[in-house]
Amino acid sequence: MRATVMFGAGDVRIENVPDARLVEPTDAVITVTRACICGSDLWPYKALEPSDTGRPMGHEAIGVVEEVGADVHTIKAGDLVIVPFAYSDGTCAFCHEGLHTSCVHGGFFGSNEVGGAQAEALRIPQADGTLFALPVGRDDALMPSLLTLSDVLGTGHHAAVTAAVGPGKTVAVVGDGAVGLCGVIAARRLGAEQIIIMGRHPDRIALAKEFGATDVVSQRGDEAVERVRELTGGFGVHSVLECVGLDQSMLTAINIARPGGAVGRVGVPQDETMSASKLAFYNNVTVSGGPAPVRAYIEELLPDILEGKIEPGRVFDQTTKLDGVPDGYRAMNDREAIKVMVKP
Amino acid sequence: MRATVMFGAGDVRIENVPDARLVEPTDAVITVTRACICGSDLWPYKALEPSDTGRPMGHEAIGVVEEVGADVHTIKAGDLVIVPFAYSDGTCAFCHEGLHTSCVHGGFFGSNEVGGAQAEALRIPQADGTLFALPVGRDDALMPSLLTLSDVLGTGHHAAVTAAVGPGKTVAVVGDGAVGLCGVIAARRLGAEQIIIMGRHPDRIALAKEFGATDVVSQRGDEAVERVRELTGGFGVHSVLECVGLDQSMLTAINIARPGGAVGRVGVPQDETMSASKLAFYNNVTVSGGPAPVRAYIEELLPDILEGKIEPGRVFDQTTKLDGVPDGYRAMNDREAIKVMVKP
Repeated sequence: MRATVMFGAGDVRIENVPDARLVEPTDAVITVTRACICGSDLWPYKALEPSDTGRPMGHEAIGVVEEVGADVHTIKAGDLVIVPFAYSDGTCAFCHEGLHTSCVHGGFFGSNEVGGAQAEALRIPQADGTLFALPVGRDDALMPSLLTLSDVLGTGHHAAVTAAVGPGKTVAVVGDGAVGLCGVIAARRLGAEQIIIMGRHPDRIALAKEFGATDVVSQRGDEAVERVRELTGGFGVHSVLECVGLDQSMLTAINIARPGGAVGRVGVPQDETMSASKLAFYNNVTVSGGPAPVRAYIEELLPDILEGKIEPGRVFDQTTKLDGVPDGYRAMNDREAIKVMVKP
Repeated sequence: MRATVMFGAGDVRIENVPDARLVEPTDAVITVTRACICGSDLWPYKALEPSDTGRPMGHEAIGVVEEVGADVHTIKAGDLVIVPFAYSDGTCAFCHEGLHTSCVHGGFFGSNEVGGAQAEALRIPQADGTLFALPVGRDDALMPSLLTLSDVLGTGHHAAVTAAVGPGKTVAVVGDGAVGLCGVIAARRLGAEQIIIMGRHPDRIALAKEFGATDVVSQRGDEAVERVRELTGGFGVHSVLECVGLDQSMLTAINIARPGGAVGRVGVPQDETMSASKLAFYNNVTVSGGPAPVRAYIEELLPDILEGKIEPGRVFDQTTKLDGVPDGYRAMNDREAIKVMVKP
């Protein structure tokens, strides 16, 4: 089968690889009908060490179940399913607590062990726990929005939840990528009164406003902090959604949080240490977040998509077949595209 | 009047200073009947740059109101009052939210502006908002426990609250100082099922057990992490109370937190950056805490002291007059004393 493999920074290729197949009796194999490129895929795209074997890429997908192992009981061949970016058994203590990304039998797609989703097919470990069967057909017009349930919408939602967004709260979203834009959707859904999007790309800002952003801060660094404070009576916001992962963005996030506020971080941190630890302490600013348990959020978010209340699929501004995936990486890395959908 | 002044690391003196007096109409002046030395006072004791003017020390007190300004309406001369370590107006947005340590008209005792509590008398800014009038006499046997409401008990409680301690939770307390010991009390009060005290001083460990600690981990570093995991089914604890403030202690705290758990930090951080940021992220460990809004907690904690349900005053294992304060610093710094009470 054909699959996306990254061999080093900037070196993404479509390769012929062994077909996805059942390995464990709890596995399923799906034909991928939709996948996409994630902002987090751009970190290795910028910095992956060259290797001969390469890394299978992609961790977001919708697909049709082709085959299930002997111990798979709730998912069956023919189901149209959402693949969350992490697989999970659905039964361990962490899954019961809603933290599927810490499942004791879990792991992440886009590895040499399980393969990647930017491919014709994908092996799904822990299929019963991992997959969510959709109540729609495979060519439904809602497919782009449904695909966001595999990562980007759930991740934006996790940022909002861990930043304690709620009715009447003031919110700032650091990062105008697809996750940040979904963070705006999530913040609005959860009742935020003021939603400040921090970014400077006109197309992204325009979409953020349509998603519910009430204010735009296009400055950076100290000027951005100053501007957010001006917009919030001098104090900063209750909730900051950190959707980047750089030291500078965390610094901004902590600086614009109101005393007693919270930063929900979902941008994969690129540094071992976190700056502004003292500032967070003195202001009683909570730093929370991590890999989003998107599997746990599907039940909550799906109805709003089916009812047309939210349209997170609008973050996809390019669509390509598998052959176009390498150029999709380039386009996202050059910020020509917000997020690229893949129809293998 | 006589007051404690620190002129540099290890250089604590009892000096004659100008009498505490009303400056603003919202001030009160109290005679200090009890004060104490705080673990956080040991940071400057270890590292304060020498100066000729020095720094007035002390931020925990009980006292009798001698005089109030024209705009003080609820507190009156003769009241026996608790002095929280931060003053606050009680009326601003942050005070209404229970975060008195971020009061817009607030500040901290133990500064050249307002003076310190390890003294015969103390000026209290924002007296109506700051002070809490006690329903007991000045020589009540509960005085040591009541004094802990000015900082150490409220701080331990804040660590527990921000670490999301609740019924059935597993808890670890990093640090066996007076704050950590009060953290044990707080964790038990809030219903924790397992409370692991991390420390190695026999007298402190013994007290921690009497306060409700169920397990003791005396190892340090990686061994301590390993031991806590052994005690908690391999996963770590739901809630970590970080009561030290060093990089190493935060590293331990994040390492022993269960995925999805929380670290409530109240040890004043000694570093600008926080280690293990990536680990916290990947485990969805929340880092919360800061200066405790002890003023907000008095109403909740006082009844348990008055009813004898908790005895936080047992953290005081030495008592001295003002003349003995310099030696009290030495004793606490040498870990001869857990916490020193001062009767000026």
